[in-house]
Amino acid sequence: MQIEHALRAVNKGGTALGIKASNGVVIVTEKKLPTPLIDESSIEKISVITETIGMVYAGVGPDFRLILRKARRQAELYKLRYHEPIPVSQCAREIANIMQEYTQSGGVRPFGISLLVAGYDHNGPQLYQVDPSGSFWAWKASSIGKNSDNAKTFLEKRYSDSISLEDAINTAILTLKEGFEGEMDENNIEIGIVDENKKFKCLKPSEIADYLNEIGD
Amino acid sequence: MQIEHALRAVNKGGTALGIKASNGVVIVTEKKLPTPLIDESSIEKISVITETIGMVYAGVGPDFRLILRKARRQAELYKLRYHEPIPVSQCAREIANIMQEYTQSGGVRPFGISLLVAGYDHNGPQLYQVDPSGSFWAWKASSIGKNSDNAKTFLEKRYSDSISLEDAINTAILTLKEGFEGEMDENNIEIGIVDENKKFKCLKPSEIADYLNEIGD
Amino acid sequence: MQIEHALRAVNKGGTALGIKASNGVVIVTEKKLPTPLIDESSIEKISVITETIGMVYAGVGPDFRLILRKARRQAELYKLRYHEPIPVSQCAREIANIMQEYTQSGGVRPFGISLLVAGYDHNGPQLYQVDPSGSFWAWKASSIGKNSDNAKTFLEKRYSDSISLEDAINTAILTLKEGFEGEMDENNIEIGIVDENKKFKCLKPSEIADYLNEIGD
Amino acid sequence: MQIEHALRAVNKGGTALGIKASNGVVIVTEKKLPTPLIDESSIEKISVITETIGMVYAGVGPDFRLILRKARRQAELYKLRYHEPIPVSQCAREIANIMQEYTQSGGVRPFGISLLVAGYDHNGPQLYQVDPSGSFWAWKASSIGKNSDNAKTFLEKRYSDSISLEDAINTAILTLKEGFEGEMDENNIEIGIVDENKKFKCLKPSEIADYLNEIGD
Amino acid sequence: MQIEHALRAVNKGGTALGIKASNGVVIVTEKKLPTPLIDESSIEKISVITETIGMVYAGVGPDFRLILRKARRQAELYKLRYHEPIPVSQCAREIANIMQEYTQSGGVRPFGISLLVAGYDHNGPQLYQVDPSGSFWAWKASSIGKNSDNAKTFLEKRYSDSISLEDAINTAILTLKEGFEGEMDENNIEIGIVDENKKFKCLKPSEIADYLNEIGD
Amino acid sequence: MQIEHALRAVNKGGTALGIKASNGVVIVTEKKLPTPLIDESSIEKISVITETIGMVYAGVGPDFRLILRKARRQAELYKLRYHEPIPVSQCAREIANIMQEYTQSGGVRPFGISLLVAGYDHNGPQLYQVDPSGSFWAWKASSIGKNSDNAKTFLEKRYSDSISLEDAINTAILTLKEGFEGEMDENNIEIGIVDENKKFKCLKPSEIADYLNEIGD
Amino acid sequence: MQIEHALRAVNKGGTALGIKASNGVVIVTEKKLPTPLIDESSIEKISVITETIGMVYAGVGPDFRLILRKARRQAELYKLRYHEPIPVSQCAREIANIMQEYTQSGGVRPFGISLLVAGYDHNGPQLYQVDPSGSFWAWKASSIGKNSDNAKTFLEKRYSDSISLEDAINTAILTLKEGFEGEMDENNIEIGIVDENKKFKCLKPSEIADYLNEIGD
Repeated sequence: MQIEHALRAVNKGGTALGIKASNGVVIVTEKKLPTPLIDESSIEKISVITETIGMVYAGVGPDFRLILRKARRQAELYKLRYHEPIPVSQCAREIANIMQEYTQSGGVRPFGISLLVAGYDHNGPQLYQVDPSGSFWAWKASSIGKNSDNAKTFLEKRYSDSISLEDAINTAILTLKEGFEGEMDENNIEIGIVDENKKFKCLKPSEIADYLNEIGD
Repeated sequence: MQIEHALRAVNKGGTALGIKASNGVVIVTEKKLPTPLIDESSIEKISVITETIGMVYAGVGPDFRLILRKARRQAELYKLRYHEPIPVSQCAREIANIMQEYTQSGGVRPFGISLLVAGYDHNGPQLYQVDPSGSFWAWKASSIGKNSDNAKTFLEKRYSDSISLEDAINTAILTLKEGFEGEMDENNIEIGIVDENKKFKCLKPSEIADYLNEIGD
Repeated sequence: MQIEHALRAVNKGGTALGIKASNGVVIVTEKKLPTPLIDESSIEKISVITETIGMVYAGVGPDFRLILRKARRQAELYKLRYHEPIPVSQCAREIANIMQEYTQSGGVRPFGISLLVAGYDHNGPQLYQVDPSGSFWAWKASSIGKNSDNAKTFLEKRYSDSISLEDAINTAILTLKEGFEGEMDENNIEIGIVDENKKFKCLKPSEIADYLNEIGD
Repeated sequence: MQIEHALRAVNKGGTALGIKASNGVVIVTEKKLPTPLIDESSIEKISVITETIGMVYAGVGPDFRLILRKARRQAELYKLRYHEPIPVSQCAREIANIMQEYTQSGGVRPFGISLLVAGYDHNGPQLYQVDPSGSFWAWKASSIGKNSDNAKTFLEKRYSDSISLEDAINTAILTLKEGFEGEMDENNIEIGIVDENKKFKCLKPSEIADYLNEIGD
Repeated sequence: MQIEHALRAVNKGGTALGIKASNGVVIVTEKKLPTPLIDESSIEKISVITETIGMVYAGVGPDFRLILRKARRQAELYKLRYHEPIPVSQCAREIANIMQEYTQSGGVRPFGISLLVAGYDHNGPQLYQVDPSGSFWAWKASSIGKNSDNAKTFLEKRYSDSISLEDAINTAILTLKEGFEGEMDENNIEIGIVDENKKFKCLKPSEIADYLNEIGD
Repeated sequence: MQIEHALRAVNKGGTALGIKASNGVVIVTEKKLPTPLIDESSIEKISVITETIGMVYAGVGPDFRLILRKARRQAELYKLRYHEPIPVSQCAREIANIMQEYTQSGGVRPFGISLLVAGYDHNGPQLYQVDPSGSFWAWKASSIGKNSDNAKTFLEKRYSDSISLEDAINTAILTLKEGFEGEMDENNIEIGIVDENKKFKCLKPSEIADYLNEIGD
Repeated sequence: MQIEHALRAVNKGGTALGIKASNGVVIVTEKKLPTPLIDESSIEKISVITETIGMVYAGVGPDFRLILRKARRQAELYKLRYHEPIPVSQCAREIANIMQEYTQSGGVRPFGISLLVAGYDHNGPQLYQVDPSGSFWAWKASSIGKNSDNAKTFLEKRYSDSISLEDAINTAILTLKEGFEGEMDENNIEIGIVDENKKFKCLKPSEIADYLNEIGD
């Protein structure tokens, strides 16, 4: 029951989605801005865990901050112990284990968030989804939050294993645009990418604008 | 459910609002005085966290005092560790993290308050809102408490990014005046400002009176 | 809900009230004596916290004793640390913080009392009211317990900032007399005062009798 | 609610009463003996706390034993610390504080007893009543348990401040006799007294018989 | 309510009874054997606490075993501390205190047993009854368990203070026989006695048979 | 109530029974095999505690494993302390004490099993039954689980104190056969015995088959 | 009740089954892929515990990960202590003990999974099923999850003790195929085997494809 409550919180969250391309991964999310008074530039729904791994959430923002802190701590511990960056799958697993623990122990409640974890390591580009129950799977492309069912149907039609990161970025934007309420611009979406350089980075508004223009043509 | 209970407490609290100007931030609040017997001069709904950061609340006063003590302690710890004042965003984040923790742990209840945190640091003027769930966002202008929806609509119409602190103060007073029950005077509102000097200060009743006179003209 | 239960207990308690005069503070309370068999001289509803601060309660007597012990301990700690008596506002704040804590933690219940804290320090005469929620405010004059609403209305009409302590004592007695069941005498009310000497003291029955005679004339 | 449950237990307990005389205090109680098979001589409803203080209870006997042990421990601690016997009021206060604590903490229930504490110290003879809520007051004369309301009415009529201990003992016996079911004799009541010698003692059956004979004349 | 549950368990237990004679104490109990398949010789409802004290229970057998272990430990501690055997009243008191504690603390339930504790010390022969609430009294003769009310009426009629132990044993057997279902023999009752030698002992079946024959004559 | 839940679990368990003969003890049990796919040879419902003591259960298998581990640990501790094997009665008592503890403490539930404990020591052959409440008795013959009432009636008719172990084994098998669903063979029952050699052992299927053939003749 | 909740979770899990052959063990499972977007290659429902033991689950995936970590830790501890690999039965027992513990303690809930544990040691090939209650049995062949009842009926008909591992693999695939929704291929099932080499391994998709082709012929 607590899990279902958590899932409802996820499904009310702003849509986010990710696509694993042949040479990288992209994650995008809408930023839900109920009013223009919010300073968009201060909102980061996509966050960096390590140099090579980033993630985006749908659901309860404050819960995300807590899991982000815990994920970073796990990643640091890993690096201290093994003198190399935490692999993407291991990172997603650690997050998922924490989230599982919060479903089985007394005195706490499950996290009200789903996550898309994107990274690039010696196993290539990788995209993981983690849910409140603590389940996690690798995806070629996935979506979480409000319109995630439609977005996944959309992605199924367009996805191919050989998709390039550039195409994936465009596909991700187009998918998000499908269910987008109002006009999409460089300030109300976020895009995070990681390519063969193994550096996860969030695109600047100007870079996002370029992609939007390209698509708009 | 506990969160909803907390939000109801917030919405019964006296209206407060804040505006981020190009060269500073202003926060104002009404002081809810059910009877003239209360000594207005002793009530401070706007409180100083550090030299450069202040905050105002709507909701359960005693809960505010607790979060204020915790916020000040975090700010001191930051200074001890990094030998510089805590940045505004970091300060708001620490407060938000504490409030998130109280939503997820057993044996405690969420805080029955929303906050507007105003400060000025190397990133310029900043205004944050923190809610009982622990969510926090940067705002250009926002309002919390009883008439916050109307106040936000009012602010949306009047806000411009290039607004000066002086104009922001006047706009803040005018917005608060909209939903104000009874006559507004220098004793039943509070105003806190921070400008390029990076000192947060509460205006004296005489200073508030000057602004009120100016507007009244 | 627990808070409402506590407030009901307060509202069933015997009426108490306080008035801040220009040169001192007075607090008075009825002593609820269901039977003449109780030794009136042994009942102290007004208690001394420090040399300069006293308080009276309405509500659950045993809860008052606990908060009194805690208040005294805080006052002693303050003196040990700062080598000067605890200021009145700080004392009221410490009491209020303890009472707030009992509303938010598991395993305890809120205190079933409201308090009037009266003292005189370098900031002059001061009167604070503390409620079960932990809220506290400075008052010019206030009342707690059974007839507190009527008493406050009465006080609003008669209060002036320039009132002298002597007049305040008389006003306090008259206000209490309004809702008093049965004959008021020196044994069924208590009066505590603090003046410019900064010594809080409870009046002796003979002193109270003098005031009553004066009024009776 | 738990307090009400405790009070009901008190009101089902055997009647006890106490009278503070000008030169001493007497407490008396019936011993509820459902059957002659119980060895009356082994039952002590009146117990000694220190040389100078005794008490009697109405309500749940086993709860009384626990509070008796705790009271004795507090009295010993006091003596160790201050090298003089605990004053009666302090002793009653310590007992009351323990009983208050059991009303406010989780994991325990309030004590199902009311107490009459009688003693003689440098402040003269004293009689305190302590209730399950932890409230305690000094009384001239009081009664607890089954017929306590009637007994108090009876005492109100007969009490005078100048009453001697001898008269008080007779009055106490007469009062208890009013609501007594069956024949009163030296084995089914207990009498404890303390006089100017500051020694609390329980009367022997033969001494009680003498008082009963005297009254019977 | 938990106490009432415990009392019901006691009243379903097999009848036990005890008689304090002028020169000793006897306790007897039926052994409830639902089937002849149970090895009667292995059942001991009467147990030895110390050389001089024994006890019998009615109610939940496993609870009895726990209290028996605790009673023995207390008795040993007493001996270690004071270098003499624990007096009977002290032993009963310790047991009663443990049982009281289980009625007032969270996380445990009251013991589902009543006890008759029989012993002989420098105060002579003694018989105590301890109930689930933790109350304990000295009795001349008492009964616990299924038919205890009838048994007590029976005992009241036949008891005299000057009864000898031999007569008491016979009276005890006759009383138990009153409500006994089926034929009484040396295997379905137990008898424990303590006399001026201050050794508590359980009678052997052959000894019991002798008493039964005597009575049968 | 929790105890009743535990007893229901016991009564749904497969029938087990035991007989104490003049020169040994036998315990037998059906193995409930819902499907032939289960590897019968891997199921042991009868388990060895020490060289001389074995036991069988009816009820919740996993609970049995826990009590088995605890029983073995107690038996080892006994041997370490006293340098001799734990006596059968002491072993049953330790198990029963553990099971009692689980009925009275918070945070755990009673064990959902009844046990038959069989052993041979200096007191000869012995058979104990332990129930979820923690009660334990020595039996001449007993049965637990599904058809235990019928089995006990059957045993009452056939039991004699002078029965030899060989006859007891046959009687045990015949009793179990009464309520057996389907054909009984060497794979769907288990037999454990202990004789004057004081070694508890489980019979091999071939040995069981011999007994079954003998009976079948 | 919590156990029933756990069992419902198991019965909603994807079907898994295992067959113990004369010379090895096979376990197979469907992979429930709600969408082709999930990266099948990243999902492992069959996991290795030690070199010689593997297991598959039906039910709540994140719970499985926790039990897997605990199982591996137990296996390592065993090896450290005894310098040899943990036997299969001991491994299943340790897992079952952990799962039992979660049914009896407060503050945690039972695991929402059933397991099939397959291994080969000095006792030959072995297959264990462990359920949420903590029960575990050795099976010749078994099935857990969605269609397990049908699958078990199917297996009962086809199983023989002398089945070879190759035949068992084919039988396992055919059984799984019975209730399979949609087309079965090398990517939507997993197969784990262990043979006389005592190495547990998961078949590669190409190996699975070979078996499927063989069957399809």
